[in-house]
Amino acid sequence: MTDSSALARHIDDVALIDQHVHGCWVAAGDKRRFENALNEGNTEPLADFDSGFDSQLGFALRTHCSPLLGLPKHVDPQRYWERRSQLGEAELARLFLPAAKVSDWLVDTGIGAETTDVPALADLSGNRTHEVVRLEQVAEQAARMSGDYASAFEEILWRRAATAVGTKSILAYRGGFAGDLTEPPASQVAEAASRWRDGGGTRLRDRVLLRFGLHQALRLGKPLQFHVGFGDRDCDLYQANPLLLLDFLRQSADTPIVLLHCYPYEREAGYLAQAFNNVYLDGGLSVNHLGARAPAFIARLLETAPFHKILYSSDGFGPAELHFLGATLWRRGIHRVLAEFVANGDWSENDAVRVVDLIAHGNAARIYRI
Amino acid sequence: MTDSSALARHIDDVALIDQHVHGCWVAAGDKRRFENALNEGNTEPLADFDSGFDSQLGFALRTHCSPLLGLPKHVDPQRYWERRSQLGEAELARLFLPAAKVSDWLVDTGIGAETTDVPALADLSGNRTHEVVRLEQVAEQAARMSGDYASAFEEILWRRAATAVGTKSILAYRGGFAGDLTEPPASQVAEAASRWRDGGGTRLRDRVLLRFGLHQALRLGKPLQFHVGFGDRDCDLYQANPLLLLDFLRQSADTPIVLLHCYPYEREAGYLAQAFNNVYLDGGLSVNHLGARAPAFIARLLETAPFHKILYSSDGFGPAELHFLGATLWRRGIHRVLAEFVANGDWSENDAVRVVDLIAHGNAARIYRI
Amino acid sequence: MTDSSALARHIDDVALIDQHVHGCWVAAGDKRRFENALNEGNTEPLADFDSGFDSQLGFALRTHCSPLLGLPKHVDPQRYWERRSQLGEAELARLFLPAAKVSDWLVDTGIGAETTDVPALADLSGNRTHEVVRLEQVAEQAARMSGDYASAFEEILWRRAATAVGTKSILAYRGGFAGDLTEPPASQVAEAASRWRDGGGTRLRDRVLLRFGLHQALRLGKPLQFHVGFGDRDCDLYQANPLLLLDFLRQSADTPIVLLHCYPYEREAGYLAQAFNNVYLDGGLSVNHLGARAPAFIARLLETAPFHKILYSSDGFGPAELHFLGATLWRRGIHRVLAEFVANGDWSENDAVRVVDLIAHGNAARIYRI
Repeated sequence: MTDSSALARHIDDVALIDQHVHGCWVAAGDKRRFENALNEGNTEPLADFDSGFDSQLGFALRTHCSPLLGLPKHVDPQRYWERRSQLGEAELARLFLPAAKVSDWLVDTGIGAETTDVPALADLSGNRTHEVVRLEQVAEQAARMSGDYASAFEEILWRRAATAVGTKSILAYRGGFAGDLTEPPASQVAEAASRWRDGGGTRLRDRVLLRFGLHQALRLGKPLQFHVGFGDRDCDLYQANPLLLLDFLRQSADTPIVLLHCYPYEREAGYLAQAFNNVYLDGGLSVNHLGARAPAFIARLLETAPFHKILYSSDGFGPAELHFLGATLWRRGIHRVLAEFVANGDWSENDAVRVVDLIAHGNAARIYRI
Repeated sequence: MTDSSALARHIDDVALIDQHVHGCWVAAGDKRRFENALNEGNTEPLADFDSGFDSQLGFALRTHCSPLLGLPKHVDPQRYWERRSQLGEAELARLFLPAAKVSDWLVDTGIGAETTDVPALADLSGNRTHEVVRLEQVAEQAARMSGDYASAFEEILWRRAATAVGTKSILAYRGGFAGDLTEPPASQVAEAASRWRDGGGTRLRDRVLLRFGLHQALRLGKPLQFHVGFGDRDCDLYQANPLLLLDFLRQSADTPIVLLHCYPYEREAGYLAQAFNNVYLDGGLSVNHLGARAPAFIARLLETAPFHKILYSSDGFGPAELHFLGATLWRRGIHRVLAEFVANGDWSENDAVRVVDLIAHGNAARIYRI
Repeated sequence: MTDSSALARHIDDVALIDQHVHGCWVAAGDKRRFENALNEGNTEPLADFDSGFDSQLGFALRTHCSPLLGLPKHVDPQRYWERRSQLGEAELARLFLPAAKVSDWLVDTGIGAETTDVPALADLSGNRTHEVVRLEQVAEQAARMSGDYASAFEEILWRRAATAVGTKSILAYRGGFAGDLTEPPASQVAEAASRWRDGGGTRLRDRVLLRFGLHQALRLGKPLQFHVGFGDRDCDLYQANPLLLLDFLRQSADTPIVLLHCYPYEREAGYLAQAFNNVYLDGGLSVNHLGARAPAFIARLLETAPFHKILYSSDGFGPAELHFLGATLWRRGIHRVLAEFVANGDWSENDAVRVVDLIAHGNAARIYRI
C-alpha cells in the first residue's frame, strides 16, 4: 500500500488472530502436489492443461509471495516453483508464517497427517497457537472405544476441549445443513452408534450421530465453528447455505457459532450474524481463492453483519504461502474497502481503525478468551 | 455531494414517493429501545457487548443524521443519544421527516401500536400520506367478526381499500413462499377459518387463509406489496426468495405486485420485474441497513429490472431518523451509481435524470394513481 | 476505450470465438417485434407503458450501436428505430456482424424459424460458422421416426454431430436441474418414448427422455452446453441453479460441460468450473442484458473459475445488434476489470493479456477443436 494514511499504517501493522487455520506441510513434495494445493474445489488430480497457477489464487501467490523468496512480483510459475523447491517446507514456513504478523493461530487439527501439529506451528511461526477440536474426529475416536458411545464421545470431547479454544463441525461435508438438527434421544444415539461401529466406524455420515455431536458442542459453551459454503466438491455447495441452519441457530442459545468461509453465501451469513447474538462469520479460504477479487468479497462481509461479529482467518493448509497470503490479501482488501468509505465521507478514519481492530483480533480475543 | 453536475443537483432536489413506510415513535423511550431499533434481524434484546451502533446503519446514522441535530458528522454514539434524548419524538419527526424531501408517504398500518398513525405522519411531515392495508391484519379483523369468514374478509378489505392505495402481505413471515399459492376453494376457506377462530384467531399462519387473502387482493386490482428477503429472524430468509413466487406471479394477471426490500435476492427480484409486466421491486429497508455499502446494492437493483419497474421506499419504522436516512442514502447511492455510468460514457446525463425521476416518484405515481 | 495501454489495444483487437449464438432475423418486422426482443424474461407482449428501451440493454444499444448506423450515441429510441427501419435485416447483419470482430460463430440451431441458418450467418458475417446441436430437437426428430426411439435418437445425434462442434441442452426449460439425472434403463426409455409419441411427440418434458439425451451427449464426447440461470419465464430460475447439477457432473467424466449465461448464479458456476476438470462457463446473454452493469458481472466470472475454464459468447438472437453488442460490452467490461487489477498491482499486464486470449478464443479453440 502506498497510502500513508493512519488507516493504511494501522492495517499494515495490526496483529491478527487467525481464528481458523491448519498446519503447514512437513515434508518436501513434487510440483503436482503444490499445483493441486492451489485448487480447493477439485478432488481429482488437475487436468493436464491445468497448471493450477491460472487462477486468482495462483496469480496472487506470484504477486505477493514472490518478494519473500527474493523473486520479482508476477514471476512466472516455473521460476516460482524452482525457487520454492530450493527451500525445505520448514524453511518456507519460517519465512512466510512470521510475515503474516499473526499473534495467535487457532488450529483445526481434524485433518492433515502431512502437516505440522500445533506445537510445530508455534515453533515455526514464533507465535502462540491454540487447538480447535473437530467434532467428527471426536466421533471417530469414540467409535473406536468400547462401551457406551455417548459417554465415550462426551468424555473425549470434554478432555480434549479442556485445552482447546473451540470446536469445529464439517457437517457441510457430511450431508449438508438441510433437515432436522435437533438433539436426538439417547436411545437413537445408541442404535446409530451400534450400526456405525458395526460398519467400521469411519467417515461419519450418520445424521443422528452428527446431530448428537453438535448438541454436545453447544453444551461445552466454547465457540463452535461450521464449514459453510465453498470447499471441495465432496461438499454439496447447495446444501451448505447457512440459511439452512436457521432452526439449529434458534436452539443454540449463547454458544458462539462461527460461520467459516461462507462464499458465495457471505450475505446470508452476515444476515444471520445480525439476527442472532451468538452468530459470527469470517471469510477465510475464500479471500485466498479470490485474490484480486477479494476486496469485493470483503466489502460484502461488511454489509449487514454487526462489526463485532466479523472475524479474520486464512484457513491456510499445506503450503505456508497460504497462511501468509490470507493475511496479505485481507490487509489489502480491508484497506481498499475502508479507505473508500472514509474517502466518501461515509465513515470517519477513527471508526475505520476501530473496526479493523475488531476484525483483526478484538472479536476473536473476546469469544475465544485469548 | 460536492458534484455540481445537473444530475447531482437533480438527485438532491427530486421529490420522493416513499412507497413503503411505517409510523414514527410517539413516546419517548430508553436507550436500549433506540439501540434495538438499529438491528432488524434480531428478535431478542441485543447482547451486552452490542451497542447497536456498530453496524453500517449505526455508522450511517452518526454520519448523516448528526448534522440535523447540530452535531458533527461521525459523532460518538453516546453524544448522539444524549442530544437525541433532549428532543421529544415529535420534535425529532418534525426535524427529520421534512428533510427527507418526500411528497407522499405510503404507510403500511399493519403494525406499530407505538408509532404514529397516518394522519399524524402527515401532520409531522407536512406531506401527503396514503394507507397500505395489511392483508394479515384484515384476516385477523375478519376472524373477530361473526358469520362467514370469507364475506367478512372481503367486506373489510374492500371497505378499507376504498381509501387506501394498495395492500401488503407478510407471507414471508408466515411460512414463506414455497408451496401451493393457488386460490383455495370456498369450502376449504370456511373450514380453515373455523379452525383458526376456534384456536383464537391471532397471528395467522394457516396457508389456506393466507392464500385466500392473496387472491382477494389480486381481485382488488390495487398494487399488492410483498415483504421479500431481509427481515427479522421470524422470517426464514431461505423461504423468502422471490423466485418461489413464480407460480403465483403466473396467476397474478394485471394487478401490480411489488417486491419489497429484496436483500439478498435483489437480482432475482429484478429478473422477475423483467419477466412479468406487473412485477415491481424496491430496496427499502436494505438501503438503510447497508449504509456505506448501499451504492453496491442500488447498482444491482439496476441490472435486469426495466427502469419503469423500480420504486423508492425507506421502510422507516420507529426512529424518525430512518425515514430521513433512507432518502439520504438512496440519493447518495443512486448518484454514485449513475454518475459512474455517465462518466464512463455508458449513459447520457439526460437518461440518468429520467431514470431518477422514474424511481423517485414516476413509477409509484403511475401504479398507485397518486 | 481511451486507454492506450497494450492491454487496451489488445482487447480492442482480439478475435473472438462466439461459442454460443443464434441466427439473425431474416425478414423485416414491426417496432413491437424489435422492442420485445430487448426483453428476455417476458413471454408476453410488453405492457403499453414499456417501450422495451428502458433497460440496461436498451440504453447500451442506443449508446454502442447508434454510431454504426451513423447516429449520435444515446440517440432517442424513436430515431434509432426509424434509422434501423431504413435498412433491411440483411444489411443490418452485414453492418453489425463483422464489427463484432468474431472469427468463429458456434450456432445453436435448435430454435429460430425466423432467423438465419448457419451458412447464411457465415455469409453475412464473413466468418467461419459451426453448428451446435440441440438435444431436445434431436429428441423431437427421433419421435417423428418410426421404430426404436433410442436407436433413432442415437443415429440422428451421431449423424448431426459429425459436422457439429458440440451439443446443447435446455433442460432448464423442461423442468429444471433438480432430481435424478442418472442414465435411465433402456426399458424405461422405450416406455417413455412410446407415451410421448402417443401424446404427439412435441415439446419434450419427459424426464426419462431428457436424461437419456444427456447421457447420449456425454458419450459423444463433444462439449455439452447447458442453459443455466437467466432466460425467459418458462424457465423456473429457482430450478436453474447449476449447483443442482452436482450429481450429474460427478457422472460426466471427461466430456466438457459448458454452463451458459449463469446469471445470477455466476459464482456458483465458477465454483463448479474449479471443482471439475471438465466444467466451463460463460456469461453470454447476461452481458447484453446488464449493459452498463456488465463489468461487475464479468468481474464475478473471474472469481473462483480457473482462467482456462471461462469462455466468451454473446447469445445473440434476432436483431444483429445483439451479436455485436455482446462483443462490445465484453471488451469494455473485461478491460475495466483487468485494467483495475493491473493498476492495483495485483496482476501484471502480460498476465492480463494472456487471460484475455484464453477467454476470447483460446479456451474455446481447445475444447471445440477449432
